[in-house]
Amino acid sequence: MATLIEVTDAADVRLADYRDLRDVALRKHLEAEHGLFLAEGEKVVRRAVEAGYSPRSFLMAPRWLDGLADVLATSDAPCYVVSEALAEQVTGFHVHRGALASLRRTPLPSVASVLDSAQSVLVLEDIVDHTNVGAILRSGAALGFDAVLLSPRCADPLYRRSVKVAMGAVFSLPWTRLPSWDTALPDLSGAGFTTVALTLAPDAVAIEDAVRGLDKVALVLGSEGHGLSSRWESAADRRAIIPMAAGIDSLNVAAATAIACYVTSKRD
Amino acid sequence: MATLIEVTDAADVRLADYRDLRDVALRKHLEAEHGLFLAEGEKVVRRAVEAGYSPRSFLMAPRWLDGLADVLATSDAPCYVVSEALAEQVTGFHVHRGALASLRRTPLPSVASVLDSAQSVLVLEDIVDHTNVGAILRSGAALGFDAVLLSPRCADPLYRRSVKVAMGAVFSLPWTRLPSWDTALPDLSGAGFTTVALTLAPDAVAIEDAVRGLDKVALVLGSEGHGLSSRWESAADRRAIIPMAAGIDSLNVAAATAIACYVTSKRD
Repeated sequence: MATLIEVTDAADVRLADYRDLRDVALRKHLEAEHGLFLAEGEKVVRRAVEAGYSPRSFLMAPRWLDGLADVLATSDAPCYVVSEALAEQVTGFHVHRGALASLRRTPLPSVASVLDSAQSVLVLEDIVDHTNVGAILRSGAALGFDAVLLSPRCADPLYRRSVKVAMGAVFSLPWTRLPSWDTALPDLSGAGFTTVALTLAPDAVAIEDAVRGLDKVALVLGSEGHGLSSRWESAADRRAIIPMAAGIDSLNVAAATAIACYVTSKRD
Repeated sequence: MATLIEVTDAADVRLADYRDLRDVALRKHLEAEHGLFLAEGEKVVRRAVEAGYSPRSFLMAPRWLDGLADVLATSDAPCYVVSEALAEQVTGFHVHRGALASLRRTPLPSVASVLDSAQSVLVLEDIVDHTNVGAILRSGAALGFDAVLLSPRCADPLYRRSVKVAMGAVFSLPWTRLPSWDTALPDLSGAGFTTVALTLAPDAVAIEDAVRGLDKVALVLGSEGHGLSSRWESAADRRAIIPMAAGIDSLNVAAATAIACYVTSKRD
């Protein structure tokens, strides 16, 4: 059972994990250094703990305790009980979703273990927006994808905003970072996946045609601003496009991913 | 030609339209009261002006002037030229996308005029997140939808964040507010549209089957938290679902909309 500890001083050092949650630069530094990530709201905290992440501590107002009593019962971590005003003072915003938890990051799995028995994989190149990474994970999980590989510069799936948008998918869907950016796609092809890059390249075919009949498929998605690098675009086995109305630049990458995942999940 | 006016005092009242752009409550109040909205970045400012919105003023650092010279040439509004530091001081954030413009809102068109000659329409019920509204507009425009109708409680498509995410679609895609929430769907049916509600209702059929063979179609989408109201769910001519993997709650509404728009755009 977690130990309940009432804290009334916003400067209490025990609350360090929860400081200034809107300060992205500070949080990246702090979370990397201490190997932690934050979960926000009863549902997300529960899913993180159930997925095996070990809590460093919890932070909540008294009225949020009951909803997480079963989760607190499974942990030896301290649970700091604070007023809602103090929670706001420490985190820098009104915590309307309730409970917070600070959890220990675990070593990232190997690419091979993430791909083990996977049939449908998402490969993200330099998606730098936490909301997009979270939304892509959620869509991938909902549409039956088995794994996600991230290029080294992709935004952190365990950053608070990603976790929130992913609605728990970041805990259920296996993912890891690609150690080698340049050989990632040939490696996937070598492992039996057909790599299908979403792109506006002139030789791109409609996504439905690109995935038809494929057994193991890896959808490859590029960054928000400039799309895929030319290296990844040309290294992919196939290039695919989502047909769009005239005069429109492109879809948002999360929307494009949702459509591509849907079409891939229904491929003949 | 816009008049260039150098401003060096962050407290200058002429910069009032650009104050505290991250303070959502303040901005909602200020923008409604003065009938204005903000456009951010060269591309969005250009599209807003080209779409016929009349600028109240522009705000930019000297190095952003050249990129918008052609737009400034078409306007009599003042262009406040400030240092990037002062822009940050006034707006409350680092304006990395460059130019800002404050533009006059125009009266919303009637539902009838928005629906005039439309074949495919999106109907949004209480989508309260600006990012989602913007993303939905962008997907609708990209996938060939002709119009968007918003329930009274939907987030403002002209709020800065919506405009940014929509990438100009908010200017190109006709949209308006529904004056009557309760008769909206029967009215659409009366106008010859088949209303298709996206829902998890037990009698929902796969979206591909729901839209097959339809001539004029209105996709009906519910709010982020609880989905469609029971009134709209039951009032729709058809209820449709996007088939998902076991154990997943649902897709994000913007992702679901992208998929539904795609499937609808490709209906036989």
